[in-house]
This record gives sequence, structure tokens and C-alpha cells, in this order.
Amino acid sequence: MPFNTVKVLEGKTTEQKRQLIERMTQVACETLDVDPSKVFIFIEDLEKDNYGKNGKLFSDLDK
Amino acid sequence: MPFNTVKVLEGKTTEQKRQLIERMTQVACETLDVDPSKVFIFIEDLEKDNYGKNGKLFSDLDK
Amino acid sequence: MPFNTVKVLEGKTTEQKRQLIERMTQVACETLDVDPSKVFIFIEDLEKDNYGKNGKLFSDLDK
Amino acid sequence: MPFNTVKVLEGKTTEQKRQLIERMTQVACETLDVDPSKVFIFIEDLEKDNYGKNGKLFSDLDK
Amino acid sequence: MPFNTVKVLEGKTTEQKRQLIERMTQVACETLDVDPSKVFIFIEDLEKDNYGKNGKLFSDLDK
Amino acid sequence: MPFNTVKVLEGKTTEQKRQLIERMTQVACETLDVDPSKVFIFIEDLEKDNYGKNGKLFSDLDK
Repeated sequence: MPFNTVKVLEGKTTEQKRQLIERMTQVACETLDVDPSKVFIFIEDLEKDNYGKNGKLFSDLDK
Repeated sequence: MPFNTVKVLEGKTTEQKRQLIERMTQVACETLDVDPSKVFIFIEDLEKDNYGKNGKLFSDLDK
Repeated sequence: MPFNTVKVLEGKTTEQKRQLIERMTQVACETLDVDPSKVFIFIEDLEKDNYGKNGKLFSDLDK
Repeated sequence: MPFNTVKVLEGKTTEQKRQLIERMTQVACETLDVDPSKVFIFIEDLEKDNYGKNGKLFSDLDK
Repeated sequence: MPFNTVKVLEGKTTEQKRQLIERMTQVACETLDVDPSKVFIFIEDLEKDNYGKNGKLFSDLDK
Repeated sequence: MPFNTVKVLEGKTTEQKRQLIERMTQVACETLDVDPSKVFIFIEDLEKDNYGKNGKLFSDLDK
């Protein structure tokens, strides 16, 4: 605890994910007063064909 | 707001996803009285090996 | 299938939820070619203290 | 009902998923007093690059 | 790992939840070959006004 | 994008949530190179009766 699920647009690098996990864990520890061993982070890569906003498929908006 | 996550069986076409996003956004706007720019839709493709009902793996049922 | 989870801001009426479920089910049936008995919808009420955008707690933005 | 989502580390075999679905359905039926036809199970495969604990990316820990 | 989220209809007793957690953990350990200390279970109580199937709000069906 | 869902144990203060949202948004912007207006954060309060680890209900462990 906490358990943190982050949906990001597909295409992030491993280094970006590494930084995200390291720094989000630090924020969780400092704001919630927990030990880093209790912090779990899940990343979900969202494909452009599986995301829509404003009524449009993102892969269409992105063209 | 709203944020709408739709789990569908794998194999939907891009055109089906485009229609789903366009029409679900319209329903959200009309029933919840929000602007389409506030509506986000996420589609999750469910693999037949990752779905079970009635105690059976869907890829077994589907044979 | 499909399974549809809709996060809405707290305070929606039962009638709004009833309409949302009826009409989203219809859209799912027509775009994905499934029977209404296969469509499941879950609504999640999001409290203003549990939602943030642009770095701000929504209950602060809403003041 | 119930709807059960199980995040597992990538690499599980189809046989493991088959057993998981069969036996989790049985537990749900017995503890919640529902019919197996009402139990739905979703499995999510978590990639090692998309999982972090203790501030570290799992694919780094695993080396 | 695994992380297991179970949506149940509101109204389950603490004893039912206790049994669900104990037995689902056991199934996870035996089918996935993990230690019980690695198994996390989250229960979500679904209100009848927040659940729909077959195009109907569950609180209407339940009358 | 990103969309970040944080499950925390019930009982966090509004000030803790405010800090969590502010600082997680900042981390998302810096690591993923996005504008803060694109960052959405959802907090879920987990009740002790709805959380289990090591086969035990958390409300039992906590006694």
C-alpha cells in the first residue's frame, strides 16, 4: 500500500518507466508516510487504437 | 469526466472501436450533461486465454 | 462481454444512471454485435476529494 | 457477479490460467453462495518492464 | 504478485470476505506457485444503483 | 494522459491527498514530458475490511 496504476500512451522508454517508478515511489513515501517496500506501481501502455477523447479515436486525431 | 473503460473480446476492428468511441461519447454527453471534450474512453482487448466464465477458460469454451 | 466501467463525478441521480446504462448497452450491442444480456456496466462515483487534474485536488478547484 | 481481475506476472502457462479460473470460480461460488455461471474472471499479464516495487523497475530487480 | 480485485454485490458479511481472502490466496499460491506473503486481494462492494446488466439498472431488476 | 489511479488505505487526510496529487502530477510531467493539464489522478480509499494480504483480512491483522 499504496498501489498505483499509471496509464501512459504507448511508446515510453524503459528509462522513462524506471524514472517514473523511482520518483512516484518517493512521492508516495513522503506524502503518505510509508516505507518504499510497501509501494507497488503498475504501468499500462495504452495503444492509440484503444484510446478516445472528444468522441474521436486517438489514432485518428494523431494523423 | 467521465472516464469510461470498455473491456471487449480481442479481434474488434478499428472501425468498430471508432464507432464505439463516437457513440459512447455522445451517450455520456447527453445523459450526464457534459461537453465531449471531457469524455475519455479506454478500450481493453481481452485475450481468450485471459478470460473465464462458468469456471472455464474462454479459449476452451470457444473450441 | 463487453464489461464497461464508467467513472463519474459524485452526485449523479438514479435516473441519470438508469439512462446511462440503458443507452450505453444499446451502443455496445449495435457497435459490437452482441446481445444485451452479455453487456455489463459498472458505475464508479468519484468524490471531489479523490480526483485531481492539472496538479490540483478537484474539491479545491470547485470552490 | 462476482467479477474477479487477477494481475499475474507475464509467463504463466495456459494450464496455470485454466486451473486458476476453475478453482477461483469454485471458491467464489462457495464463499459468496452464487452459481458458477455468474462468476467472471479476467487475467492481466504484467510485463516486467511495467511493474515496480520498492522504487525499482521489476525488470531491473530480476537481473 | 498476484494482485486480485474482486467486485462483489454490496452486502457481503465480514466473515464471507475473510473466507474469500483466505481461500483465494490459497488457490493463487497453489496454481501460480507463489508464497502467500506475495498475494494481495482487494474487494470492491458494488452498489445496486451502480451496476447494470441487460440494459437495466440492477436496483430496478431487484425490485 | 497519463491517468493515474492510487489505492490508499482509508483514513488519509485531505492535505495528504492534495500533496499526493500535486507532487505525482509534477513527477508525471517531468518523466513523461507532458503538460500538467493532461495529468489526471484518481484516489481510491481502501477499507480495512476490503483488503487482504498473506491470506488474512487486513482488519484482522490490524487488531
